[in-house]
Amino acid sequence: MLVQEYFKTRSRLLEKALDQYLAPANEYPEQLHEAMRYSVFSGGKRMRPILFFATYEMLIGRKNINRLARLMPVACALELVHTASLIHDDLPSIDNSSERRGIPSCHEKFGEATAILAGDALTTKAIELLTEISNKKVAIDCIHVLTKAVSTRGMIGGQAVDILSAKKKVNINTLRYVHLKKTGALLQAAMELACVIEGAEENLTITLSNFALNLGLTYQIVDDILDEVGSFEVLGKNPGGDSRSHKATYPSLLGLEKSKMKAEKLLRDCYNLVKNMKANDVLLEFVNIVKDRLP
Amino acid sequence: MLVQEYFKTRSRLLEKALDQYLAPANEYPEQLHEAMRYSVFSGGKRMRPILFFATYEMLIGRKNINRLARLMPVACALELVHTASLIHDDLPSIDNSSERRGIPSCHEKFGEATAILAGDALTTKAIELLTEISNKKVAIDCIHVLTKAVSTRGMIGGQAVDILSAKKKVNINTLRYVHLKKTGALLQAAMELACVIEGAEENLTITLSNFALNLGLTYQIVDDILDEVGSFEVLGKNPGGDSRSHKATYPSLLGLEKSKMKAEKLLRDCYNLVKNMKANDVLLEFVNIVKDRLP
Repeated sequence: MLVQEYFKTRSRLLEKALDQYLAPANEYPEQLHEAMRYSVFSGGKRMRPILFFATYEMLIGRKNINRLARLMPVACALELVHTASLIHDDLPSIDNSSERRGIPSCHEKFGEATAILAGDALTTKAIELLTEISNKKVAIDCIHVLTKAVSTRGMIGGQAVDILSAKKKVNINTLRYVHLKKTGALLQAAMELACVIEGAEENLTITLSNFALNLGLTYQIVDDILDEVGSFEVLGKNPGGDSRSHKATYPSLLGLEKSKMKAEKLLRDCYNLVKNMKANDVLLEFVNIVKDRLP
Repeated sequence: MLVQEYFKTRSRLLEKALDQYLAPANEYPEQLHEAMRYSVFSGGKRMRPILFFATYEMLIGRKNINRLARLMPVACALELVHTASLIHDDLPSIDNSSERRGIPSCHEKFGEATAILAGDALTTKAIELLTEISNKKVAIDCIHVLTKAVSTRGMIGGQAVDILSAKKKVNINTLRYVHLKKTGALLQAAMELACVIEGAEENLTITLSNFALNLGLTYQIVDDILDEVGSFEVLGKNPGGDSRSHKATYPSLLGLEKSKMKAEKLLRDCYNLVKNMKANDVLLEFVNIVKDRLP
């Protein structure tokens, strides 16, 4: 099976499940439900749910789309939590982004109050979805993994440090922390959730967690590099934003060459972590996706 | 046991548990943890956890403080969710309240970005606490009850309608919806959680849910009345705020006399719902607390 076909079939399933789980836009209070749907269906690449599926299908040793149906609450929960974080990140008092994926951000379209509540509601909905898992022990373990990823030790912690570092001189450790927490934590959760569901051994779970953290960190380092030397097409937004906002980046702290070397090293680490596993082709494709963005 | 003593002993236990569960203020990222603690320990009356304890002790038929230790994650989760909602409600784009309980609101003290994240983190922490319940089925049921109370069918829905109704002509049904969802939903969850933990019969759960919803609605109607005729001392804030912000209230829609009659009727309903239950003294005290605020 072509990897592109894999992404297409899995994301099609996911879109359908998201549509079923979210309240319809005409349900009271309409504007709130409309805002939630607007942000969820604004063209996200569904990387986290697909990484979750790919990990699960690697663990069971083969591609089997029929076995994914019962995993939909978990896959959708990942995407909802991701969307919630983007809505709050975009708010005027946080990153102040009026655009997201080429369209007005949630608060720009629906107002700040509704955007704050839409983010809150999507996180809550994500947890609610996980309560649907039939095995109660697995359900609790999944909720534990997801709340850890969102918490002050995860994405919220990363965003907090990012905000508090603005216009301050930060060192590479702080920047690494922000990238690992803001981006790595939820990728890690995606892979850990598959391990919890499939009952993977602890060593394997740790290996896959490290793969996810490396992947998230590298993605952000490449983003930092693209912000310096990339084009709108590759970056998905105008480059130069970080230096204009005096934001610390890998290139601003390490230089461009060292940053590239760091990214390449991390990608090799990712590759090495999973190279001997069976049915690892989609995981390797995630490594390639990041590699292909590197200028 | 005097009811006052009951409130004192139970809230003392709760304060201790909250302090143990929340990350210390000097844990990285410090400002975020400090903001969370600032709002949690800003003098709340802990009504929701105490209503939860009171329901549980009514269900087991006697006061037994030793049996409350294992309930602390649930009691604290209620208080954290409540605090999170207050932090987000106070934000400039929502209710724009610079004070809460006589001190600066969270965003006033720590900035808007940190306040948004502190609210997000407290909700996440609340769910995380519920994963600690040893019986996994009970844990999942508790998480389901709490997420329903927070969701777009609960507090978030109520807040959304409240925002979208601002400066609009609303009718009594909309106002009732806002009061029931913003205040009633979490009181209902407090009582339902005790029912889930004690395995109460469905009929009893429904009766207690109705008690909680009535109580929440009446509390808000009395608040509306006090905003018209009350003093700073009873209301805890300057009266007249609703009419200044052209906010619909029970007195503005029904008149003062009819609003008072409505509140009295609801309090009688509350009383009647639990009057024949054993060990109901603390529940009746909740009715009295609301009655005593009525001018």
